[in-house]
Amino acid sequence: MIKTDILIIGAGPTGLFTVFEAGLLKLKTHLIDALPQPGGQCAEIYPKKPIYDIPGFPEIMAGQLVDNLMEQIKPFSPGFTLGERAETIEKLEDDTFLVTTNKGTKHNAPVVAIAGGLGSFEPRKPPIPNIQDFEDKGVAYIIRDPEVYRDKKVVIAGGGDSALDWTIFLAEVASEVTLVHRRNEFRGALDSVERVAELSKLGKVNLITEAEVKELKGEDHVTGVGIHHKTKGEMHLATDHFIPLFGLSPKLGPIANWGLEIEKNAIKVNNAYDYQTNIPGIYAIGDVNTYPGKLKLILSGFHEAAIMCQSAYQRIFPDKKYVMKYTTVGGVQGFDGTKKEAKKEVVKAIN
Amino acid sequence: MIKTDILIIGAGPTGLFTVFEAGLLKLKTHLIDALPQPGGQCAEIYPKKPIYDIPGFPEIMAGQLVDNLMEQIKPFSPGFTLGERAETIEKLEDDTFLVTTNKGTKHNAPVVAIAGGLGSFEPRKPPIPNIQDFEDKGVAYIIRDPEVYRDKKVVIAGGGDSALDWTIFLAEVASEVTLVHRRNEFRGALDSVERVAELSKLGKVNLITEAEVKELKGEDHVTGVGIHHKTKGEMHLATDHFIPLFGLSPKLGPIANWGLEIEKNAIKVNNAYDYQTNIPGIYAIGDVNTYPGKLKLILSGFHEAAIMCQSAYQRIFPDKKYVMKYTTVGGVQGFDGTKKEAKKEVVKAIN
Repeated sequence: MIKTDILIIGAGPTGLFTVFEAGLLKLKTHLIDALPQPGGQCAEIYPKKPIYDIPGFPEIMAGQLVDNLMEQIKPFSPGFTLGERAETIEKLEDDTFLVTTNKGTKHNAPVVAIAGGLGSFEPRKPPIPNIQDFEDKGVAYIIRDPEVYRDKKVVIAGGGDSALDWTIFLAEVASEVTLVHRRNEFRGALDSVERVAELSKLGKVNLITEAEVKELKGEDHVTGVGIHHKTKGEMHLATDHFIPLFGLSPKLGPIANWGLEIEKNAIKVNNAYDYQTNIPGIYAIGDVNTYPGKLKLILSGFHEAAIMCQSAYQRIFPDKKYVMKYTTVGGVQGFDGTKKEAKKEVVKAIN
Repeated sequence: MIKTDILIIGAGPTGLFTVFEAGLLKLKTHLIDALPQPGGQCAEIYPKKPIYDIPGFPEIMAGQLVDNLMEQIKPFSPGFTLGERAETIEKLEDDTFLVTTNKGTKHNAPVVAIAGGLGSFEPRKPPIPNIQDFEDKGVAYIIRDPEVYRDKKVVIAGGGDSALDWTIFLAEVASEVTLVHRRNEFRGALDSVERVAELSKLGKVNLITEAEVKELKGEDHVTGVGIHHKTKGEMHLATDHFIPLFGLSPKLGPIANWGLEIEKNAIKVNNAYDYQTNIPGIYAIGDVNTYPGKLKLILSGFHEAAIMCQSAYQRIFPDKKYVMKYTTVGGVQGFDGTKKEAKKEVVKAIN
């Protein structure tokens, strides 16, 4: 059982910054995210897209923002449960919460902060009847560890950036890479499209366009795919892995069943005070929450995280009074023993 | 008369970022600040101190944050009235506001955003009976333009960073620099203290410690100061300028008389919605406002600015509906004709 002070559900920018604000209050944090790496949408969907409205950055790549936040929270050594989805929540007798993931990992904390963004990003699945039987048995919708594919035969399906980028990457790793797309046109960054065309010409990528994977073959594991080609008809291809990359679609997911007040696929919070939900001890911050005038901006998630941590502190230590100190004055004291602080002024005689 | 959409009072980080959020909504902005440069406290009081809690910056010098914000808002070409203090506000018949500074500059806008931080920073003045008679006639509490002192005789008083830094700077500009301090110990950055000691040894700075300026002499302009020295008694020194640098102390100032609800030296706002004050059309954002749970953090000012601009838009265009677009998707269209946007994805055939 993982125990912490604030259990943060969602490791996007808001969830990550919560670690920092909690750390200033000496509260420990642990994050759960369904994605295999921290950063949420910024890391998974648009790491190389610029954001222009993060205060103080005239322009920053989404992936760089995540890297910066990871660096900023490092002194507070947060824990991570990645690649698992928070599935159920239970209130224990001691007034703390028990959150269990889809893989059974248990987490216990007096405060839960839902920073779930637009929800967990569920992969869009192709309409292949038996595809669920092969999940984790050769079928994957997200590539968690590319090494799994070393010297294997891989079929990727899709026509966007994800499909293009992974085709390029796995061309160097897998023994054979096939990219199947139902159109002849690809939609992605110009250099990715051109690189795939080049790899195809060099014979390093097997490109099958105007075709769709319609069938999966195998017993305990994928051994082949059945492909329907627009003009050539049915084809069969032996493969060890099938990776459909048709994008992610946000779903509030199991959190929708936690007894929280939901409005338009978002969690209602009391913004007038501390972004707490209708269940005391559970907060919702960032894009996942809603209140009158709510703006789904990363900078709003940062503010909500700061306010929420103050309220969490009072819940965890009802008898203590926290006196806020500015980081410029008090510095940042990491849990890892590090200390950052402004150069102190000296008092020194001159004459 | 200066006309704009949102008149921002206070050019600290919150005021500056308001320009950006307003700009995204195509609203024009103009800023008034009593200080001679934008940036508020960050620029005037601690430009070289690191801040650790700006999201995305593990560490940033306050002055650098201001520079970054100035760069970020550049596309929206804000106007500035600097070195003047917003003195009076008047509601006109057309429901807009007229704000006049202490120097008589008039500004007209349908929305006023007070981003006044802890208030205007009023210089602490030494207790010299006739000092007010010599203000702008040889006496200055803030150095706006160092060139004023070129080849002049200057007496600086004070023992902190400001006094030390300007002594070092003016040693190269003025014909003669005297630093008077009532103690022999100085309180400041180590290298500043050491540099002043060195300049004193080299005879480039005239250092008089354990002494206080008690008297100002002159008719239309300062011509000399009377100094009381702890052991040597009364002294007289000819000078063209007297610059007491005893720090700035925040005062809400004339804004306190604008009819706004004030609580503990801050302006009460309705945080549950849009940070509007008790006077419709006047908002208060950043450290100047208060509401239950308020945190005086720069990152909160950024959030409040974003929310406030949406409300201002509705006030200015009651019939229009604004549809928020993310900067990553819609880019940033400057009023100066510039356009920043993410590289568009291409749709391209490969085969």
